[in-house]
Amino acid sequence: MAKDKRVEQITDMEVDFAQWYTDICRKAELVEYASVKGFTILRPYGYAIWENMQRIMDAEFKKTGHENVAMPVLIPESLLKKEGELVNGFAPEVAWVTHGGSEELEERLAFRPTSETMFCDHWSRVLHSYRELPMLYNQWCSVIRWEKTTRPFLRSREFWWQEGHTIHETAEEAMAETEQQLNCYADFFEKVLAIPVVRGRKTDKEKFAGAEATYTVECLMKDHKALQGATSHYFGDKFSRAYDVTFTGRDNTLQYPFQTSWGSTTRMIGAVIMAHGDNNGLVLPPAVAPIQVVVLPVAQHKPGVLEAANALRDRLLAAGLRVKVDDSDNSMGWKCAQYEMKGVPLRVEIGPRDIENGQCVMVRRSDGEKTAVALADLESAAQEQLRLVYEGMYAKAKKNLDEHIFAASSIEEAKALQEEHGGFIKTMWCGELQCELDMKEKAGMSSRCMPLEQESLGEVCACCGRPAKHMIYWGVAY
Amino acid sequence: MAKDKRVEQITDMEVDFAQWYTDICRKAELVEYASVKGFTILRPYGYAIWENMQRIMDAEFKKTGHENVAMPVLIPESLLKKEGELVNGFAPEVAWVTHGGSEELEERLAFRPTSETMFCDHWSRVLHSYRELPMLYNQWCSVIRWEKTTRPFLRSREFWWQEGHTIHETAEEAMAETEQQLNCYADFFEKVLAIPVVRGRKTDKEKFAGAEATYTVECLMKDHKALQGATSHYFGDKFSRAYDVTFTGRDNTLQYPFQTSWGSTTRMIGAVIMAHGDNNGLVLPPAVAPIQVVVLPVAQHKPGVLEAANALRDRLLAAGLRVKVDDSDNSMGWKCAQYEMKGVPLRVEIGPRDIENGQCVMVRRSDGEKTAVALADLESAAQEQLRLVYEGMYAKAKKNLDEHIFAASSIEEAKALQEEHGGFIKTMWCGELQCELDMKEKAGMSSRCMPLEQESLGEVCACCGRPAKHMIYWGVAY
Repeated sequence: MAKDKRVEQITDMEVDFAQWYTDICRKAELVEYASVKGFTILRPYGYAIWENMQRIMDAEFKKTGHENVAMPVLIPESLLKKEGELVNGFAPEVAWVTHGGSEELEERLAFRPTSETMFCDHWSRVLHSYRELPMLYNQWCSVIRWEKTTRPFLRSREFWWQEGHTIHETAEEAMAETEQQLNCYADFFEKVLAIPVVRGRKTDKEKFAGAEATYTVECLMKDHKALQGATSHYFGDKFSRAYDVTFTGRDNTLQYPFQTSWGSTTRMIGAVIMAHGDNNGLVLPPAVAPIQVVVLPVAQHKPGVLEAANALRDRLLAAGLRVKVDDSDNSMGWKCAQYEMKGVPLRVEIGPRDIENGQCVMVRRSDGEKTAVALADLESAAQEQLRLVYEGMYAKAKKNLDEHIFAASSIEEAKALQEEHGGFIKTMWCGELQCELDMKEKAGMSSRCMPLEQESLGEVCACCGRPAKHMIYWGVAY
Repeated sequence: MAKDKRVEQITDMEVDFAQWYTDICRKAELVEYASVKGFTILRPYGYAIWENMQRIMDAEFKKTGHENVAMPVLIPESLLKKEGELVNGFAPEVAWVTHGGSEELEERLAFRPTSETMFCDHWSRVLHSYRELPMLYNQWCSVIRWEKTTRPFLRSREFWWQEGHTIHETAEEAMAETEQQLNCYADFFEKVLAIPVVRGRKTDKEKFAGAEATYTVECLMKDHKALQGATSHYFGDKFSRAYDVTFTGRDNTLQYPFQTSWGSTTRMIGAVIMAHGDNNGLVLPPAVAPIQVVVLPVAQHKPGVLEAANALRDRLLAAGLRVKVDDSDNSMGWKCAQYEMKGVPLRVEIGPRDIENGQCVMVRRSDGEKTAVALADLESAAQEQLRLVYEGMYAKAKKNLDEHIFAASSIEEAKALQEEHGGFIKTMWCGELQCELDMKEKAGMSSRCMPLEQESLGEVCACCGRPAKHMIYWGVAY
């Protein structure tokens, strides 16, 4: 079917993956650049994806007892500086407020780059007894990090996220929370976004500033580059001590609670684009698609066609789906291309002959498969097709991941594999920073994580030959 | 029933209304002060009320075709300054970002005090044709206004709100949108928050900086002071012209769209406190209460009581209510006082004798009314009691409003009425600024609005004696 020019101008991913990505961001009307350098606008269609992500994640967080709060967006410099590692990690990227109205502030205020410090400050004032623990908080907000180079969703001076912050009576409980939230993210990526992940622990070099341990879900994009999906941090009682957060314990002594934080961002939209998109545009997982089904009337000027299309919409809406009829006077070719660009998971076509035959045609965005469906079976067939869309997307992404994990036993071999195939290169590692730096310098790869599911590839570190402590994944990352 | 000390420390509203208000904000655990001057923290219980408000309003906005977006939080000074009235109105209250990381910015950036400028800037780049109109946008975010004196919810340097921004092909459509959203707010106040409002238009002095017309819903608190609930603005094409937002019209000429904006904030929580609260604490409208029903087991150590309480909770949860059982070892007196403080609309008590009699007891927070209910009727009785809570709250607030509107025909009379009764003083008005200034200086009242439902109280302005143009409400406002 011939496509309209307005929809066609998208670079093939094989020609220029970065341009293909940017093209989708713009043509699918997800984002637009703002007049502030490095900042982006989330347009209605992009924001609707984020809203669906928020709704699903928020419900999961609440199931495990988390409560939402809102902390101030500005943090006094002195407060931010109480924990040395954190401030060293974030100081170069902080935006500073120095004036309120016409007055110059006595102390400059940081636009939050992350809110551990505010939560600790709050807890230092409201926490009294072990009976009040755990405190399981989360907030949805935007943060600013003054990045030098930016790309929509992936790296932006302002981005939208959730940041969970919790304190617990014991280290064990805090560690269990860290793991629970890591698994919550992994489930969200796999079951909702149809993106398989590798769960693992970050090296000391790559962990969150100030954390004792950072856990991550790492995923692989279609260009075989790695993307850090979301992270979950364990802090021990380091921040509690720095911010004087204490409680009276069961034994009546003053104690420091153990802390976690965990975050996921609008970068997940970037992950969806690069894990599933194709040369016709976005391919959205049904669970987060703003429109799950678009109904297109064929020969809509013919009697009964529009009514039939609207009836399909009403039935699908009643079945709880997000549905739209496009009865505009654009050509069928334009409409098909447009909803492909926007990644709508299922297209339903109905025309005069379909009506005669008591059927409609369903077309899956993910693989183009067409199925004629009896109108009587509309709702169950749509649900089934959406399930198949999800499964097909997950299977394809899983195949991409599985076929792009390679074992290496030296930096040279790792480099050659990365250059030839991309993906994750797994090696044994001694645990030393110098070997990470060597891998980065010689093979251009950063450590992605030490997978929770360890396997033995040998006895010695691929970088230095000394005894190995961990199996580790390397990659070129976004 | 004797109350525990922890719950009792709240000032009577008759003794010190301001202190009573602050006490509720703290003791009901709605907010906490932050270590940044003038900023507040929304704690879980306060934020949960806001989430319920957001969910209900957001659904209403979407029903009329509005879409959510996210605009950058920082606005370049030059962009903010393009529309003179707006910047003059907000400049004294703007927080300025001057440094990003270690670099000083070439142009300082304003933390958004409101986002008309960003929306216009965006539209100037994405709008092309009348076919794309109207654009009906909204965003949920926080804004900063550098206020000198602050009070939780009512006036805070950072507050959370929604700001709707729309552009339309014609002035008529934009005006219809302005009115539609005003009515949307009025319905929300009356049907959800149980707060009756006066719908009206602001004077030029009190309107939003840069607007052609500002409409407002004004309500009355228990101390008979007025509170501006939410506002809806009509801009004509003033901002479109200032920001060069254009589209190709039906006649193929370049045209400027007509614009509206409308906003409501976390101040609505303050309105709920002061419109409904009493000396036992918060009284929440059922629709926004985080916990709608609290189930308290009486003599919970006796066999079967806890199980019975949990069974009630499960049935009420299944009926779609927000329910909690408190089986802590706090005393019954403490629990009752605690949930009264938190404003939980309905308390359900069940003890051994109730179980024997196949009943439970329901107690309404709003008026203390107790009703014995057969367990078989639990769900319908709870729904009915919550309806009665809402109706009782609305009736009481309506009575307060109706009994505190007084007509005056001179500034002196207006002043005397305000001093004796508080409330809204209505007079005729010539429309001149000088008379508003006189009323403020001599009677300490600002104009609240010119009600949409006008009545004739006479022929001349109460302030200057010249011919009157409007009936107007005056009051002492938060």
